[in-house]
Amino acid sequence: MRDKKCAMIETAFLAEEIEYTGAELRSHFVRERSGIEWDGVIAFVGPCGVAGERLVDLEDAEEQHEIISKRMLHFIAEQFQQPLREGNVRLRLFATIVKETLEEMSPGIEIKRDGDDLFVNDRKLTVAICTSSPLSTLFHYGININPAGAPVAAVGLKKFDVDPKRFGLAVLDRYERECESIERALRKVRGVS
Amino acid sequence: MRDKKCAMIETAFLAEEIEYTGAELRSHFVRERSGIEWDGVIAFVGPCGVAGERLVDLEDAEEQHEIISKRMLHFIAEQFQQPLREGNVRLRLFATIVKETLEEMSPGIEIKRDGDDLFVNDRKLTVAICTSSPLSTLFHYGININPAGAPVAAVGLKKFDVDPKRFGLAVLDRYERECESIERALRKVRGVS
Amino acid sequence: MRDKKCAMIETAFLAEEIEYTGAELRSHFVRERSGIEWDGVIAFVGPCGVAGERLVDLEDAEEQHEIISKRMLHFIAEQFQQPLREGNVRLRLFATIVKETLEEMSPGIEIKRDGDDLFVNDRKLTVAICTSSPLSTLFHYGININPAGAPVAAVGLKKFDVDPKRFGLAVLDRYERECESIERALRKVRGVS
Amino acid sequence: MRDKKCAMIETAFLAEEIEYTGAELRSHFVRERSGIEWDGVIAFVGPCGVAGERLVDLEDAEEQHEIISKRMLHFIAEQFQQPLREGNVRLRLFATIVKETLEEMSPGIEIKRDGDDLFVNDRKLTVAICTSSPLSTLFHYGININPAGAPVAAVGLKKFDVDPKRFGLAVLDRYERECESIERALRKVRGVS
Amino acid sequence: MRDKKCAMIETAFLAEEIEYTGAELRSHFVRERSGIEWDGVIAFVGPCGVAGERLVDLEDAEEQHEIISKRMLHFIAEQFQQPLREGNVRLRLFATIVKETLEEMSPGIEIKRDGDDLFVNDRKLTVAICTSSPLSTLFHYGININPAGAPVAAVGLKKFDVDPKRFGLAVLDRYERECESIERALRKVRGVS
Amino acid sequence: MRDKKCAMIETAFLAEEIEYTGAELRSHFVRERSGIEWDGVIAFVGPCGVAGERLVDLEDAEEQHEIISKRMLHFIAEQFQQPLREGNVRLRLFATIVKETLEEMSPGIEIKRDGDDLFVNDRKLTVAICTSSPLSTLFHYGININPAGAPVAAVGLKKFDVDPKRFGLAVLDRYERECESIERALRKVRGVS
Repeated sequence: MRDKKCAMIETAFLAEEIEYTGAELRSHFVRERSGIEWDGVIAFVGPCGVAGERLVDLEDAEEQHEIISKRMLHFIAEQFQQPLREGNVRLRLFATIVKETLEEMSPGIEIKRDGDDLFVNDRKLTVAICTSSPLSTLFHYGININPAGAPVAAVGLKKFDVDPKRFGLAVLDRYERECESIERALRKVRGVS
Repeated sequence: MRDKKCAMIETAFLAEEIEYTGAELRSHFVRERSGIEWDGVIAFVGPCGVAGERLVDLEDAEEQHEIISKRMLHFIAEQFQQPLREGNVRLRLFATIVKETLEEMSPGIEIKRDGDDLFVNDRKLTVAICTSSPLSTLFHYGININPAGAPVAAVGLKKFDVDPKRFGLAVLDRYERECESIERALRKVRGVS
Repeated sequence: MRDKKCAMIETAFLAEEIEYTGAELRSHFVRERSGIEWDGVIAFVGPCGVAGERLVDLEDAEEQHEIISKRMLHFIAEQFQQPLREGNVRLRLFATIVKETLEEMSPGIEIKRDGDDLFVNDRKLTVAICTSSPLSTLFHYGININPAGAPVAAVGLKKFDVDPKRFGLAVLDRYERECESIERALRKVRGVS
Repeated sequence: MRDKKCAMIETAFLAEEIEYTGAELRSHFVRERSGIEWDGVIAFVGPCGVAGERLVDLEDAEEQHEIISKRMLHFIAEQFQQPLREGNVRLRLFATIVKETLEEMSPGIEIKRDGDDLFVNDRKLTVAICTSSPLSTLFHYGININPAGAPVAAVGLKKFDVDPKRFGLAVLDRYERECESIERALRKVRGVS
Repeated sequence: MRDKKCAMIETAFLAEEIEYTGAELRSHFVRERSGIEWDGVIAFVGPCGVAGERLVDLEDAEEQHEIISKRMLHFIAEQFQQPLREGNVRLRLFATIVKETLEEMSPGIEIKRDGDDLFVNDRKLTVAICTSSPLSTLFHYGININPAGAPVAAVGLKKFDVDPKRFGLAVLDRYERECESIERALRKVRGVS
Repeated sequence: MRDKKCAMIETAFLAEEIEYTGAELRSHFVRERSGIEWDGVIAFVGPCGVAGERLVDLEDAEEQHEIISKRMLHFIAEQFQQPLREGNVRLRLFATIVKETLEEMSPGIEIKRDGDDLFVNDRKLTVAICTSSPLSTLFHYGININPAGAPVAAVGLKKFDVDPKRFGLAVLDRYERECESIERALRKVRGVS
């Protein structure tokens, strides 16, 4: 039985396009769209428009920001029975994986990470948020493809000739392997005094 | 990616016989003997002799009991980052699975469960204990094959013509599926007010 | 002070009949109906009809199932500050207790457990679900008395001449003792390395 | 079943005198001396002498302090599966209960609390520490009866004509009721948004 | 870097008066009114009137109590990712701090603590409640200044010539230091066996 | 009080050189060497030689590896009451910070991250491990300065003309800010359904 695969999360890249309005960041959206019955991350392409009550980030809400982008590659993750603190650390690791994957697919690009956000030449590439539902921790990670409409200086994957689907699949695969290797890491150590 | 198997635990039935002395109930014994790098349960056959300092159960230790059985089917489970309270509830579910499996393999047998112990005609069939290591929750579940030497009235699988290996594999398989279905169950409900 | 009873849960069998519609699976319903101010389980008799938004089980909701039974013995449990994973393991132990109690009260009956469900001759005897409120873990366990109206092949206690009240009290008593003995079990072991 | 007593902890005042050397602050000491099989607090009278490796408080150990008192009223508590942070908050509540009880038994006394320590006229009345075993959180609370030998200015119950046993029983009773009322408090509130 | 201040909570005394209606006991009220982006406690002065659905305490709600006071000193605390049980223990420690501070500012006063409530000559000085939001544990602690309108025998700070602002600042400062010293305490102990 | 600094961790760069033998990965080593009484990370320079029982990584121990490097920049972190799973996610974020800092200090360098390890041109730059003590989660992160003696192809900071102290201080500062910003992030979001 040794070669059985023990996976922590399942992933799926959705064929359909979906507009991200903020309402999608809720428990079981991943399940409903992908059929995943486990901790999971889905990726899909679509416009982004979040405002008002749907802004989960209070800083944004307080300053009446809107999050707008003509076309984005979206990731939504749901991990059950996971503390929000751990979820936020994972989100930053996810940001790192996005950065590393883009660096490989677009050699020579210079990306800066600031917390969970990525910038290229001081232009914002991403939006990110992590929150709790009553049953799980969820995050949204959005990467501009075409950032038209964004209220700040922004940039997108299109500019770097990166195919969103190929890119999305690579990120999903890396995050899945990262989560699994974390589980192996915590099971292969001695405790200390 | 939908048909990937998401497993919570791996299991293995060991070919070699091992004497259970109590010292085996420690972190990473499962890994060392089976190569499982994940939460896991192993089963093996061997004599049982636990006394003195190796008695994890303080009631036994206080009354200077010894746990002796000429030949037992042993299970050792290790599940990481799991609270001891949950581990004890799981152990009772494991006892239930042992009972159900034996009822199927030996039709007509009448087994009584008392907590994590099983009895046939008031004779003790099993020993069980759940404890913590610094990194995990562990349990030992021992089922008499030939209970010779036991300090109490006891009975074993031999008497019911049940093959230890076939039986052990069936229990491992059921527990693995039970653990996985618990994970699915907690991910498919709405929260309530 | 040694003989003081340390209880983890209180239980009550309600005199009144109550229809179970799904809305009863919420925090403090146990308290409101029984006055229990502690972790508790109540039992009562009444019809069952759950549909639409009140289906806590997403599999049922997705497939637009309805849960209908003319007369059921219901159990609702609320345990505070308990993780949902542990709650689901407990629910399966509760299913085991229901099975064991019925086997004793109706000798010769053959009951199959599949997760938290019980079947007699492939007919469904029970419905079960475990979920979270913001403050607690809750479960509903319904046992058909007269399953008329059930959308699947079903069977009830009436067929086995089992008195719902006597049965319900026996289950409550066993679950209460099981919960208490789990608490004792986790306090009487040595840790291991 | 409504009037059943739901207790969180059991308590016992030991008849024998025991010297407190620091070695008593370990898992299951409460059980061994009192037979309590639950979360528990014991009280007893005896000298106090803690030095070297047995100093659990690193500040004391670093400065090579010794904790000496000719005669103390000792409390040792063990609460299982309790986080150390919560245990430290409880210890301060215990200090408060000691203070309140002494204020009632010795009217006019002026006691200052500083964290988990109590002082009368700048003289140290108590020593206190909270730590973890692999299975539980433990605390020791020592109240000078006769502080002879203490390395700092100290004072004891004897000076206030307070009977250690009557005092100890009153503190045990209050802490037991406080722990129980905390459990009731967390079960009688609505969650908020 | 040694002298950097490591704080667990921030505190603020608000200049404006705010009526406490119960609706203020929700996540991020502290942030909205004070700009605190961390665990925090705010204090402010204002009338108190809580009834109906806004009664978080089910005992009050069941008995259709109203909480009324003409003028109170209010404290609202929000601590994130904190279990409700720990929050309730902290609330009692907060009650102790209120009591100790008032004893110092009003020498000779005799205050009785009963759980999280304070009484002077059997008159109620305070109201208190601790509950959970989806992201945090919150408490409200209200101290009568002028208890006119209270449905029970009550008393307020005015009677003792205690200035609410000076008093509030002293309580905030003590609670902040108490929380910090708890964090230091749990980091300076050896574990035991 | 708004501009008070709320820090999660303290950091220190030690003036003395220390050989890392594995024994340093224990609770309170950070405190003993730096006086930090809080969650903390220390950095220091010294040789590295870990073998046998001191190998916390069981994979290394099973294969009788030795970890040797003539001169390394070491980091040891201790964070109390932190689950090991979260600790492992943080360690990977720490690896990311090391990578980002080195990319900035040595423009043009190409670093690959694989879990918590970093490589330059397939040469190993780092060693890393995260484990639990009874009271905390600890990690060691070692970065070769001069990798002489390493049993695998390795590379060090010296080759890139990076000053270990300047580099270490930059990493400490970034990790401290990252930890703090994670705490702010989890306090500034609305929960979702």
